[in-house]
Amino acid sequence: MSTIDSTLTSFIDIKADSDFSIHNLPYGIFSDTKDSARRAGVAIGDQVLDLSVLESEGLLSLNGGPYFDQSTLNAFIDSGRDNWTQARTTIQSLLSSDNSDLRDNADLQKKALFKQADVTMHLPVQVPGFTDFYSSKEHATNVGTMFRDPNNALLPNWTEMPVGYNGRASTVIASGTDIVRPSGQLKPNPDERPVFSACQRLDFELETAFVVGKGNHIGQPIAVDDAADHIFGMVLLNDWSARDIQKWEYVPLGPFNAKTFASQVSPWIVTMDALAPFSTACPIQEPEPLAYLNEKDKESSFDINLSVELLPENAKTATVICETNFKYMYWSMAQQLTHHTITGCKVEVGDMMGSGTISGPTPDSYGSMLEIAWNATKPVALEGGESRTFIEDGDTVIMKGYSEKDGVRVGFGEVQGKVLPALSFDFNE
Amino acid sequence: MSTIDSTLTSFIDIKADSDFSIHNLPYGIFSDTKDSARRAGVAIGDQVLDLSVLESEGLLSLNGGPYFDQSTLNAFIDSGRDNWTQARTTIQSLLSSDNSDLRDNADLQKKALFKQADVTMHLPVQVPGFTDFYSSKEHATNVGTMFRDPNNALLPNWTEMPVGYNGRASTVIASGTDIVRPSGQLKPNPDERPVFSACQRLDFELETAFVVGKGNHIGQPIAVDDAADHIFGMVLLNDWSARDIQKWEYVPLGPFNAKTFASQVSPWIVTMDALAPFSTACPIQEPEPLAYLNEKDKESSFDINLSVELLPENAKTATVICETNFKYMYWSMAQQLTHHTITGCKVEVGDMMGSGTISGPTPDSYGSMLEIAWNATKPVALEGGESRTFIEDGDTVIMKGYSEKDGVRVGFGEVQGKVLPALSFDFNE
Repeated sequence: MSTIDSTLTSFIDIKADSDFSIHNLPYGIFSDTKDSARRAGVAIGDQVLDLSVLESEGLLSLNGGPYFDQSTLNAFIDSGRDNWTQARTTIQSLLSSDNSDLRDNADLQKKALFKQADVTMHLPVQVPGFTDFYSSKEHATNVGTMFRDPNNALLPNWTEMPVGYNGRASTVIASGTDIVRPSGQLKPNPDERPVFSACQRLDFELETAFVVGKGNHIGQPIAVDDAADHIFGMVLLNDWSARDIQKWEYVPLGPFNAKTFASQVSPWIVTMDALAPFSTACPIQEPEPLAYLNEKDKESSFDINLSVELLPENAKTATVICETNFKYMYWSMAQQLTHHTITGCKVEVGDMMGSGTISGPTPDSYGSMLEIAWNATKPVALEGGESRTFIEDGDTVIMKGYSEKDGVRVGFGEVQGKVLPALSFDFNE
Repeated sequence: MSTIDSTLTSFIDIKADSDFSIHNLPYGIFSDTKDSARRAGVAIGDQVLDLSVLESEGLLSLNGGPYFDQSTLNAFIDSGRDNWTQARTTIQSLLSSDNSDLRDNADLQKKALFKQADVTMHLPVQVPGFTDFYSSKEHATNVGTMFRDPNNALLPNWTEMPVGYNGRASTVIASGTDIVRPSGQLKPNPDERPVFSACQRLDFELETAFVVGKGNHIGQPIAVDDAADHIFGMVLLNDWSARDIQKWEYVPLGPFNAKTFASQVSPWIVTMDALAPFSTACPIQEPEPLAYLNEKDKESSFDINLSVELLPENAKTATVICETNFKYMYWSMAQQLTHHTITGCKVEVGDMMGSGTISGPTPDSYGSMLEIAWNATKPVALEGGESRTFIEDGDTVIMKGYSEKDGVRVGFGEVQGKVLPALSFDFNE
């Protein structure tokens, strides 16, 4: 575990509860109203530092660069760990209280600093591949209890491998994008044929995703003790799900239509370097994993507080409906990545790998509406008097996450999306 | 159904049984020993016509071009149907017996024509997304009979939708690439924990895949009667599968490690324009599909002969172990594409969508070793005295496909891959 230099401060005014302290420095892609060109920035307090300006001004020179006057972070990430380290060190120094280069240069500040409120954030990376795991024991147990057998809720393979499936990279979307309620095949009546309908059981899934920072060659698995070297950072992920479509379609090849309309991610990639001080142990894995999944590093998880808020269309305040923590995840990101590549699968820079829904041990820490309202049997009361069993049109779902220790906070900001009504279809029958 | 002008001939000498008649003109990406740069070509007889040369010589001018001095076909395909039509018309004319431009220009022929035996073929497109369907009723019935219940072999959703799952685009590989036998988790003994092992039940799957030629916007499904407009062409696909890994991992989220080490495609994309004369009806769909899947065009399948050959390491001749036809597929490609997008999933130019294993009604037409050797209970005799229940190290699997009618042949060539032994692992326990 790396230590925190809590004496390090920035000349930028940063509120104590800001996710974006000088210890964080997450990367994102933004544009502003005057310049619609997408380029890379780092969040600091309520501002964005334009890295393309630092490069053009000669204050940030990376091997093989420039990298930041681009619409994605892929080239920078692909340039390797030495550059990640140098960029972090340089940016942290430029933002620190005792460095005058940016602090005392008003012209440069005017060019390089933007209020977050004034910019538009975009997808931070071009995503070649999107994978979703299923690594919360509490979530898998809850789902198994509801839909299979409470006495055998976990399937036998669950404790042996980080079960996962391939998602659809083309529908990984940025925070703030509206979600059109999907339509598809449902089977409301077991004795009748399925119907075509708007989804009646629209749900969120509270997840994180890691961003692959270094690929492998096809046929060459990544060893579990090397896996951390292949991970650049993390984002929050709302893996929107159509539960009724999923229930009917998923046997035997897994979820398809139910999960390929919107996988929504937060705009800032928090680096593993920033998260290192918050590392912690995974839950005890019993039985001990097979050798290929057995990590030397027993502190390969992270203490990250996570929450979900629901804001109905005309409500004044959002209601917190879930508070949980990443540290409950049974399988680590290193184990997920190694398992993913064990038969030789190639992973690529920018790939996103979802954790699976992150549920904690108590009902107020469940990471999906399916679990919180226990398959629609326990409606959730919201501020202002409404209640929910699933997500309704006009609802906005907001997920937040942060780590905190020794007075230092490193956060993700949020991922949020609002649900619009389903399209109307006319099949001219 | 479009008609065939069987009087159309080329000045190039083309054997009667060649897949690459002047009626075909499939697109691929090649390089040669003198020029390692990848560029686009069209197969004609046993030669390749270099399209980048036609462009640079001013004989092929497409709107928005040039397109062919590139390492993938994506930009050309993305340029739209008018260009597809113009390219086909122009190339067909240049190769025809009654056009002197290329026929009588020996210098140009020397620059633009290569023997196929002298070039290396590459992946024809950059593949943003790879999806695999499961649309052969015979295959799904065979698998259900072997592993579930012979009396209820088909799951209830199977006749209602083209069941599919997301594969892994990063492991779509070119024909001729060696396949390293994958290792992963198997559970040979039901009463014991799983083991880490090389796959013991390595299989092929005889499939085709269609290449998406026109995308959609997220949230905007493609109507079934518009779907053909979104399909550029087809390739052969060997969807290599690790049956023992699959059996243990696939519940409840579908195949993952078992299918993400090698999805191997033939190098030439045969266009839907070339295949149009061979259109035919799908099998009768009973019950009638829901309206969103109900096509006006009842001839949306294709009569394509398909075969699989197996060539052991030291054998002199390959053995044909399967002969089947694409026309047995229950769900059409248009239905697959519409179902894929019905909840709003975005598809992109270059996406590949596998048919699923194509099995016919009789044992000699089954499209996987699992079915041919009926779960290892009926070993398959090979020329030279060997036999197989699954694929062994050193084996080469070769798939071929062609349509033929009125003396005109339009074929795919082949996809072939050889299996190498598994890696050795040392986990330092």
